[in-house]
Amino acid sequence: MGQKKAIVLFSGGLDSTTCLYWALDRGYVCETLTILYGQKHDREVRAAAQIAQHLRVKQHVITLDFPWLASSSLVDKNQQIPDQPMEKIESHEIPSTYVPGRNLVFLSIAASLADATGADAVVAGPNAVDFSGYPDCTPAFWQAATQAINRGTARGVKHGVEVLAPLMDLSKTDIVKLGAKLGVPFELTWSCYQGGDKPCGHCDSCKLRARGFAEAGVKDGAVEN
Amino acid sequence: MGQKKAIVLFSGGLDSTTCLYWALDRGYVCETLTILYGQKHDREVRAAAQIAQHLRVKQHVITLDFPWLASSSLVDKNQQIPDQPMEKIESHEIPSTYVPGRNLVFLSIAASLADATGADAVVAGPNAVDFSGYPDCTPAFWQAATQAINRGTARGVKHGVEVLAPLMDLSKTDIVKLGAKLGVPFELTWSCYQGGDKPCGHCDSCKLRARGFAEAGVKDGAVEN
Repeated sequence: MGQKKAIVLFSGGLDSTTCLYWALDRGYVCETLTILYGQKHDREVRAAAQIAQHLRVKQHVITLDFPWLASSSLVDKNQQIPDQPMEKIESHEIPSTYVPGRNLVFLSIAASLADATGADAVVAGPNAVDFSGYPDCTPAFWQAATQAINRGTARGVKHGVEVLAPLMDLSKTDIVKLGAKLGVPFELTWSCYQGGDKPCGHCDSCKLRARGFAEAGVKDGAVEN
Repeated sequence: MGQKKAIVLFSGGLDSTTCLYWALDRGYVCETLTILYGQKHDREVRAAAQIAQHLRVKQHVITLDFPWLASSSLVDKNQQIPDQPMEKIESHEIPSTYVPGRNLVFLSIAASLADATGADAVVAGPNAVDFSGYPDCTPAFWQAATQAINRGTARGVKHGVEVLAPLMDLSKTDIVKLGAKLGVPFELTWSCYQGGDKPCGHCDSCKLRARGFAEAGVKDGAVEN
């Protein structure tokens, strides 16, 4: 039996890069899928390209042009990305950075690619512990999406497609620890929601990342540089 | 309480046009979503635009550029669309015209639009009786996709989104009868998989359509003109 093949949803952020390293460590032959959807932080896509090149894994990059995604402050240039206190982030209220149906659409596209290329697994990096209240980062959603993929694709029906979310039950601190163990080049990853040259330090994503590194006792090369 | 709002996946074919008329007849305020994905028969999109204009419903048109969809003979110009006998079509083997994960991706995008615009329902036209063996046209898939949409979108979690497939259990003959009752302008609809000016009469879609009209005893204006 040959090696199993995985499609990894890969933004170039801390979480999806850790997922990619995790899947490689588990022995999967990986291809990455990076999706542009008008996000302000398309800087992350450069990060993704650098990391994919570093690992010599095949990278698929696609662009979605869905005008209605501008309802999200992650996309709409007229909306500011909020600077919220940690208590608010942890309340798990859905914030303005929520992108309608993003993980559902992303997983479906990854499943389409898995179907077309005969992959055995789809891997992505949602986590239900330190997250921003997004409904599409929960185990309940993930289970339902797994069913949909396995009933609605030829590959799923005939062979089965694993839908893996290795970070689902980890805190950001645990993710940093896992990444450090797997040798993730943190300095190449990009998490900030803003489109600047350096992480802003104020968005949910920067705050959750900073706390994760601090609590793990690991130096964040992306911030230090 | 105001009228309910629906997003209708709308290709301009017989089935999705019948769905659109069905949803309007049920009292939904409808917006249509038409998706180009490199299909040879993008002629259907002209049909969709004509019908949407005729009905004065809002039409969203998006284009997906996923290179791997060229595994399908519906997309790849180097593959012929097969001319199969009816017994083969009815065997429900997955044919070369299968587009990997198409309905999963389409439904997810429709759910994203429903999420962004606050719609109450997503409507689409799969049917599990007279179809070409596609795995994404089955009640099992539809049920799983409904769960995924209701767990993985803000609108689904907070309010619920109906995922309606009014043609699921109808034969093509019954669909023609329903369309005739609802006043569907058959002459404007386009079902053929080929990109020609007139329906080819040889693809699965033409054959299923022809039999449906013949058995319903209804004249197909699209073929006669």
